Formats: sequence, C-alpha cells, structure tokens
Amino acid sequence: MRKLDLLTPAEAMAKLSGALDAAGFGIAHGVQATEVIPTAQACHRVLARDVVSPIPMPEFRRSTVDGYAVRADATPGTLSVIGEVRMGEVASFAIRHGEAALVHTGGNLPEGADAVVMLEDAVSLTPDDRQPMQAVEGAPPSVTQQEQRKIQTGRRLAPGENVIQQGEDVRAGEVVVCAGMRLREQEIGGLLALGITQVEVVRKPRVALIASGDELVPAEAETRPGQVRNINAPMLAALVARNGGEPLDFGILPDARAAFEQAAQRAMREADMVIFMAGSSVGERDFVPDVVNAMGKPGILAHGILFRPGKPTLFALCDGKPVFGLPGNPISALVTGMLFAMPTLWRIQGVRNPPQPRFTRAVLAREVKSPRDLEHWFPVRLEEGAAPAPHEHPMPSAEPISTKSNLIFGLVRADGIACAPIGVDRLAAGTEIQVRMFD
Amino acid sequence: MRKLDLLTPAEAMAKLSGALDAAGFGIAHGVQATEVIPTAQACHRVLARDVVSPIPMPEFRRSTVDGYAVRADATPGTLSVIGEVRMGEVASFAIRHGEAALVHTGGNLPEGADAVVMLEDAVSLTPDDRQPMQAVEGAPPSVTQQEQRKIQTGRRLAPGENVIQQGEDVRAGEVVVCAGMRLREQEIGGLLALGITQVEVVRKPRVALIASGDELVPAEAETRPGQVRNINAPMLAALVARNGGEPLDFGILPDARAAFEQAAQRAMREADMVIFMAGSSVGERDFVPDVVNAMGKPGILAHGILFRPGKPTLFALCDGKPVFGLPGNPISALVTGMLFAMPTLWRIQGVRNPPQPRFTRAVLAREVKSPRDLEHWFPVRLEEGAAPAPHEHPMPSAEPISTKSNLIFGLVRADGIACAPIGVDRLAAGTEIQVRMFD
Repeated sequence: MRKLDLLTPAEAMAKLSGALDAAGFGIAHGVQATEVIPTAQACHRVLARDVVSPIPMPEFRRSTVDGYAVRADATPGTLSVIGEVRMGEVASFAIRHGEAALVHTGGNLPEGADAVVMLEDAVSLTPDDRQPMQAVEGAPPSVTQQEQRKIQTGRRLAPGENVIQQGEDVRAGEVVVCAGMRLREQEIGGLLALGITQVEVVRKPRVALIASGDELVPAEAETRPGQVRNINAPMLAALVARNGGEPLDFGILPDARAAFEQAAQRAMREADMVIFMAGSSVGERDFVPDVVNAMGKPGILAHGILFRPGKPTLFALCDGKPVFGLPGNPISALVTGMLFAMPTLWRIQGVRNPPQPRFTRAVLAREVKSPRDLEHWFPVRLEEGAAPAPHEHPMPSAEPISTKSNLIFGLVRADGIACAPIGVDRLAAGTEIQVRMFD
Repeated sequence: MRKLDLLTPAEAMAKLSGALDAAGFGIAHGVQATEVIPTAQACHRVLARDVVSPIPMPEFRRSTVDGYAVRADATPGTLSVIGEVRMGEVASFAIRHGEAALVHTGGNLPEGADAVVMLEDAVSLTPDDRQPMQAVEGAPPSVTQQEQRKIQTGRRLAPGENVIQQGEDVRAGEVVVCAGMRLREQEIGGLLALGITQVEVVRKPRVALIASGDELVPAEAETRPGQVRNINAPMLAALVARNGGEPLDFGILPDARAAFEQAAQRAMREADMVIFMAGSSVGERDFVPDVVNAMGKPGILAHGILFRPGKPTLFALCDGKPVFGLPGNPISALVTGMLFAMPTLWRIQGVRNPPQPRFTRAVLAREVKSPRDLEHWFPVRLEEGAAPAPHEHPMPSAEPISTKSNLIFGLVRADGIACAPIGVDRLAAGTEIQVRMFD
C-alpha cells in the first residue's frame, strides 16, 4: 500500500458517509425495507415512520395523590364528602361548591372538581365524635362512612393542584415518536399507553460475513497442524446481532478468486451490507479489492487507512450496500468491526440515536510507543474499580496490554482500547487518556 | 411513611447487597442454576465456571508477515529459497543455515527457521538475470520459480522476529476466562479459537413482573373512561430481557389481598427475582409490604427510600430471591427499575463485569429545584451533539424536562437523567452535571 494515498480513519468514514448520503441514506431515510412488529418486542429497533398520537394522554383528568377532589375556590373550609371515585371508574356525581369526593392516585377526577386535597392535609370530622382522624397512618374510611362525613382543610388550593389535565403529557395529533428513533423502554411504554400495539420498524439489515483463508476451518472442527479456527465470523456475528443487524454466515472461502466472485454475487442478492474478513491487503491471496470493485458503484472508497490495528481495511459502497474488507487478524477484525462497520450498520438503519460508546478517563500506567503516521488504538486493562459515577472519582490506572493483532486473548484481557492519534509517537506514563470501554 | 426511618438509595442497595452476601451471592457464586449453550450464542451471558485452555495458542509457530522463513543467524546474506509453506499446511522440509522458504501471514514456520524476512526486505535474485525483483507490488513468484531462486537480505534479524511462538497468547492449562465474566465478542472468539464450542453459563434469572391496580387493563385492550393501560410490565420486561433476565409477565392483579398472596406464592415457585409494580406505598391498595414479609426471610430491607421518583420503593430479600416493590407511576417504575432492580439482576447472575451506565458531562440550562431531603433524579434533554470522544469537546447543554412521574412521555423526550443529591435544594443554571444516558 502506498502510504501517501491512505486516508485517516475519520476521512475514510466521512467519505463513506458522503457516499451513503448520495445514495439516499439519511436519518429515517426510507431506503431500507420495513416490517410491522409488536411494540412490546421493539426494544432497540428503529422506528420507520413518525407516530402520531390518536388520543390525548392522559385520556382523562387524574389525581396525582390520594385525597379529596374539590373545587379549589371552596378551600380552605369544611367540605361534605359525597362519595368515592373507585379506580378504573368514573364518578356518577359532580362536585359542587362545598363538596368533596375521595379519589386515589391516578384516579379519575369527577366533574366540577378542579383540585385535590391530599389526605394528609384533610382533617376528617366523623359525625359521631367530630374528632380529628389520622388519615395518613390508617386506611381511609369506607364510602358508607364518608357519606356521613365532613372534612376540613386549612389550605387554599390553586385550581389544578394535584391534578393532571387531560392531554397534559401528549395532545391528540401530536408526533410522539419520530422516525429514526431507536426505541427505548420509555418509547415502548409511551406507545403502548396510547394503544399503539404494533409499530413499523426498519427491517434488520442482513450482513453477509465472508471469511477466507486456506488455513481456516470452522470453529467446531478439529484442527490439523497449520490450520486455525475461524473465529472472526462468530465474533462479528455477535457484534452485528447486538447492533441491530441479522448476520448471514457465508462460511469460509478458499483463497481462490472464483470463490470470492461467487460469494460477492450472492451477498449482493441476499445482504444489505457485506463484511469480508481477510483478503483486503495486497498479497497474492487478497482478492477482495478487485472483487469489490466489480460489485457495484461507486465501489472502493478507501483501501488501506492510517490505522492500527487494521491498516489494510477497505471501505466501499456498492450499489447502495456498504462493503467492508476487514483484516483477517482477529484483533484487527474485531476492532475495525466495532469502530467502522457497526456505526455504518446503524447508519443504514436510518437511526437518529445510535448507541454511543462509553469512555472512561484513566491514567496510563506505562509508556506506549506508537507509529507516528497511524491512529493507533491499543488495548488496556483498568487496574482499579472504574465505575464512572455522577460525582468525581479517582481515575483508574490503564495498563497497556502487549499483544499482536492476531492474538485474540490480548482483547480478552482488556477492558477497552485507547488511542494514540496521528502525529504522536509516544504516550508517556502518567498521561490522562480516554479509554473506550468494551460493552 | 416516616421520613426518619427511610434509607438513602445507597444505604438501601448496600443493605440488599449485604443480605445477598449472607445468602451466598457473590461473584461467580454458584447459587443460580446453570446451562450449557453454544459458545457462539453466549454473547453477554455470564460464564459459570473458569475455563482452562486445553491447548497452547497459537498451536504452532506462525509468521506475522508475508515473507521468507530463515535462520536469523544466516542474516544478512544471500539465501536459497527451497520451497513454500502453503496456508493450512506444514512444511515437509526443514530450514538449514543459508536456506529460506516462502511463508504467508499466519502460516506455519518450518522446522529450523526462527525468524521471517519481510517480503519488502528481501531482494529476489532470479536465476536468469539476477535482477532485483519488486516483491511488494506484484504477486510473489510461484514455487517452481522459487526453487531455482535466491534472495538477498541486508538486514540482521533477531531470533523470533516476525514470529509468534507456540503458546505465546495462551499456555495449555491456563485459566483463560474466569467464572463470572459476562462474555464479550472477544471471549467468544478466544474460546472458539481453543475449540471450546460449548460453555456453561448462568441460567437467565426468571423475573416475575407483577402489575396491579383496578384501573389497569392490558396494553392491547381498549380503555373505558377511568382505565389506563398497563405499560410498566412491557417496559420492565424489555429492561429485564436486555439485562440478562427472562421476564415472566404475571399480568394485572386486582387491588385485593388474596390476589397478591397467590401471585407471591407463584412467584416464589417460578421466579428467581420478583418485581411488583404498584402497591408498595401505604394506602389502602398497598398490599405489597405485608405480602412480601410473608414471602420469606429476611424479608423487607427497606420500605421507602429518600429518592425521587420512587420514594415508596421497597427492597426485600425473601428466601434467596430479591423482591422489589416499585411504584406504579411509569416514570418511577422505569427509573427505579433501571437504578436498583437491574444491578441486582446482574448481581444474582454472579457477574464480575456488569454493564456500566454511560455518563455525559453537560451544563444545566435552567435552574432545577429539588427536595433537600431526597436524592432527586430528573430527566434532561441534551441540546447539542453530545457524542463523547477520546478528545475533549464542548459540553452539551442539559435542558431539564418538566414532568410528573406518571407522564411517561417525559422520559420519551429525555436523553438521560441527572441527579440533585440529598442536601441540595437547587442546582443553578450553568452547573456542570453528569447525565446518566439512557441506552
């Protein structure tokens, strides 16, 4: 690879992003197919269309407390308790000046009432002894008792006090969740609250995972000397699955051009995104660049980036399908998959709120040497309890892990990766760094 | 509730944690049942037992580059190329002093060789014209050609240069992944590399989700006036599912003690953890405290916490099963579920590396008033692109969202929640805060 031609990772991602823009991929873009699924099953799926509320929420005026529904202009004063509004029901009566009705938290406010006196603020005057009754500690009196009862409140209530108005949360006709939202628990709850039990979401993009190498055998196979197991496909499959995609395992290609060409054709038919693992460098086994350029337009956008681990990474867009050529070394494949392929997988889902990586500040425990011309990400282990918290904590120490890019256990021993940017040839011990934590 | 008796959230969690310790729940505790599943399907599952490597990794000495396997003590010098080691095979020959063999990245190193000259560092001297050949740009020559060929290298190699030794990543017999690890992509890859295609993981804890309220109807039902849809159960089910649990939806209980008692008995039979939604306060419909105290020992650990939203939250441990009484208000149920129930769900999986929340620094856009005696979490929306990055960025502005705890769309509009600690009665506009981001 000619170094002068190489893009930085940010430049390569920007170039891919521009090509995706040109191909019509934006937020909530409408390029991908959609499907309708139960709202309750839609956590972390991407909403395909704006959802408009068919009703106001709440649907009726509700009390926010246990207490007495009253007319605010009748407070302070003594009020006659004329009944109770049971949960799930509406009152058969209206509240007039001087009247009150027992209501429960979340219960319907009767006609005429415009405020609720909290139980704690009401002194119950029983008809027999007129003794103040402790309303808070015990259970409120039954309706039969209440019908004979009066309460006294010393507080002047404002209209609307302890009341949620109809439509206070959502108005009918309001856009409540926008297309492109990756749905969280609260969206699921909000949509269900409106009675929206089905949602149209972006279909999970299918991601072709194409490993290659005459030395590879399936992970479940026995190895002969010289053979190694294919671990990139299952690692990337797990990564794709938890980033909203549907992995399609294409198995292991031999180092033969015809096999790559066939796999590429099948991937263009069956997949929405393609990831080659190995074969993107410039050796005799590296068929990916030529094959990708025949897969569609605009083709290769970056071949080789100023990045470690994973300098031979290839970025392409072929007839609307992002194509990555990741290195065959497992650490390189996993790190480039995380940093470049997964954001792209979210991008083609048209997402507004993709998941963000978590960074933790740490102090580098040992010097790290870095190639000055590359953006270099190296694995680190954090040496103290490093849970970030709302308040400041002492920073953990980040121990760099010596490894080579094909020794996957270097990442097994790591809590995250940290970056020495281009132009930096060493990070001194004691440098404050940001560690991108593994999920 | 008597305020003086209430615990802070941290105290309540510590008390629950102590009770779980006493009940034998530690990291990799062996209390929960386990199951054996395919390694490739085990992402984010918790490993039940230490895994020891049956083999060294790599299994054989490998080249890290495309080049020529040589004896380091024969460099610099001119070397006879005696063959090629094809990928997936072992050499049928050994390398003697003065000899070399073509090897590929990841390929097996022949006997006798102890270093690899990179293709770029070798000048190929062809037998016919002895002209230096550009090895980098074109494909390497075929074996037949090589057998006639000599190469020249000007570099003195160190023994081991460009070689990965057998067992350099992992030694046979080494513990490679510890019990209690929540498996990430790299553990899946590492285990599969060792031929470990099945793993014993902690069985997903079953979490009983028990909603209650005469006003509630299932989310898919039509509502009559006064009724509301049960959204807490589907929200908590989604939360449980993505925190390693298996939600068991117990439906909606009427406000009747017998229904609570029956549900509690069933939950103790079928579930590993129990979440009541509503019914944990002190009103007449609040059967949870009494029922929970009959569910097992030690019973209730905290009833009511110095916390908003969710002061009536109840923490218990009943015969080895954590039991939570969460408030019925959806915002309270979801926030207390996230902050208290989910860490406990990970805890009973015996996990060493639970997922951590992501915090983002932000500047509060408006003053927030807060009850001085409560730890108060309020929803905020971030107003700028707030992607944390390895280098410093301007902080986003956090706009507090006015809401009430039963208006779920207050959280739909939010990016995260921020905390006003106990003892603070206002956070001024401009205060730097840490926002706990929703996933």
